[in-house]
Amino acid sequence: MNIIQPVFDDVVRAYSIVKKHANRTPVLHSQSVNSILDSSLFLKCENFQKVGAFKFRGASNAVFSLTDEEARHGVTTHSSGNHAAALALAASMRGVPSYIVMPENAPVIKKKAVEGYGAKITLCPPTQKDREATQARIQEETGAVFIHPYNNFKVICGQGTASLELLEDKPDLDIVIAPVGGGGLLSGTLTYVKGFNPNIKVYGAEPINADDAFRSLRDKTIYPSESPKTIADGLLTSLCDLTYAIISTKCDGILTVSEKGIVDAMRLIWERMKIVIEPSSAVPIAAIMEHPQYFKGKKVGVIISGGNVDLDSLPFGKYL
Amino acid sequence: MNIIQPVFDDVVRAYSIVKKHANRTPVLHSQSVNSILDSSLFLKCENFQKVGAFKFRGASNAVFSLTDEEARHGVTTHSSGNHAAALALAASMRGVPSYIVMPENAPVIKKKAVEGYGAKITLCPPTQKDREATQARIQEETGAVFIHPYNNFKVICGQGTASLELLEDKPDLDIVIAPVGGGGLLSGTLTYVKGFNPNIKVYGAEPINADDAFRSLRDKTIYPSESPKTIADGLLTSLCDLTYAIISTKCDGILTVSEKGIVDAMRLIWERMKIVIEPSSAVPIAAIMEHPQYFKGKKVGVIISGGNVDLDSLPFGKYL
Repeated sequence: MNIIQPVFDDVVRAYSIVKKHANRTPVLHSQSVNSILDSSLFLKCENFQKVGAFKFRGASNAVFSLTDEEARHGVTTHSSGNHAAALALAASMRGVPSYIVMPENAPVIKKKAVEGYGAKITLCPPTQKDREATQARIQEETGAVFIHPYNNFKVICGQGTASLELLEDKPDLDIVIAPVGGGGLLSGTLTYVKGFNPNIKVYGAEPINADDAFRSLRDKTIYPSESPKTIADGLLTSLCDLTYAIISTKCDGILTVSEKGIVDAMRLIWERMKIVIEPSSAVPIAAIMEHPQYFKGKKVGVIISGGNVDLDSLPFGKYL
Repeated sequence: MNIIQPVFDDVVRAYSIVKKHANRTPVLHSQSVNSILDSSLFLKCENFQKVGAFKFRGASNAVFSLTDEEARHGVTTHSSGNHAAALALAASMRGVPSYIVMPENAPVIKKKAVEGYGAKITLCPPTQKDREATQARIQEETGAVFIHPYNNFKVICGQGTASLELLEDKPDLDIVIAPVGGGGLLSGTLTYVKGFNPNIKVYGAEPINADDAFRSLRDKTIYPSESPKTIADGLLTSLCDLTYAIISTKCDGILTVSEKGIVDAMRLIWERMKIVIEPSSAVPIAAIMEHPQYFKGKKVGVIISGGNVDLDSLPFGKYL
């Protein structure tokens, strides 16, 4: 395979675009969390990013990197999550249309959120085949550019800008850890952090119930993610060619965590730091709790991926 | 009645003490919240304060204003809430003991929190008479100084320092609003804000189910708070001589809010701003939602009193 991987300077270039549109999010730390986990954590809080998730970085880099000619027919993707909202907002900020393909059974609240950012939604039956067929039809009808949620060079470079800001604020980290689903965030993180200082360890964290990245790296083959059951609903997807290539060559390891660990970690951050983080963002915190040997006494940057939570179905109390 | 009320300079003096010990909390704003509420809100986020609440300001001012001679036998109070935790932490930072009287039926989690900050807890039967008798006995036995949660000059001045920082960050506010329970926070807020600029309106906000401050001001008499039923568990107490004197002469009005309004406001802030605020802190936001005529188009400082929430008994979903 001959895949062109992004390098450090590509993330720096992405930042010249992303910084014009995205929030510079704070890096927070907490003495009480540090003392409980026996390490020094620096949380890069992408829950305070536009649309409530890091996805806006990649989407804005992709949308604003297009030429006017490319952009004039708009952009399109299939997603029911944060990438759809991020792409819709980035497109509306550029003044071009966005077309989002969503499964018919997506929650009404998600459809409304994406519509609220100005996207045109096309519903399709909830199968992979229907999704791809609908996506192809929309592209043909509209001429819009397809922006994949993570199998996209520009998207990965955009996601890496969270680490650029993190290391600007806190250059002497020992470790950076990020959650891994499709691998866009982890790939961008690796590209920037390893270019900045190859001695900084970079780990991915994923639910043991959705451990396709862990198994893919172990067995040197990309496993599909087969309807995993996890509360971390942002990490249901599997690696693609590009993210596998980056992660398999650069990552220091994938750490898997239990569902109870995810809920405990989410509770710890909500209670002690008074910030709302989504379950996917609690996965790296859970990894620090469940694999303390890697983190004890270290300075650890944690990419908090987002804060979009359904307050009507919170998990607290279930594990008491 | 001849009550000595604090003035502007007393809060400035308090700040020279408080700023050495308390966090400088951020002032946050949100375009989406502003557009929903049709006004410009600036949230002074005391949920990020030590012990998770503004109470640490008053407690630290009271504890660190004592002479060494006064402080050597420690401090004491009766409280099962944020004031107890704040006093315990301030005492431990000064290196003196703290004695907290708590009702036997206080939740175990609250006892543990206060113990965690280093206090000695004395339990008593849950009646006003037993509480006062136990408190008197502890004072006699230990020689500790009693620090009332709000009927205390130094405590009120300490609470006013939240407004000092708010107006340092954002001097051109039209309105400041704070919740009112016993009235310590609102009294400190009024003392500073009206001294800073008497043209800034200052409102108190309280649950309609615990509207003793509203009725007290209306009828010019201090009503007791009679076992009110509200989710805003920080606002169950009633005004005292000192806070009544300040609030009745300086406050532009008390706005009451519904229980549904409190939950809706709390949800709005959690969802849109990704920060955890406690129900009492949602009361001023609910006032802005339910009394929009006062706030439309205005620049409004909101004192977010704290973020201590029991995640196992959240109210979301009940009002859908």
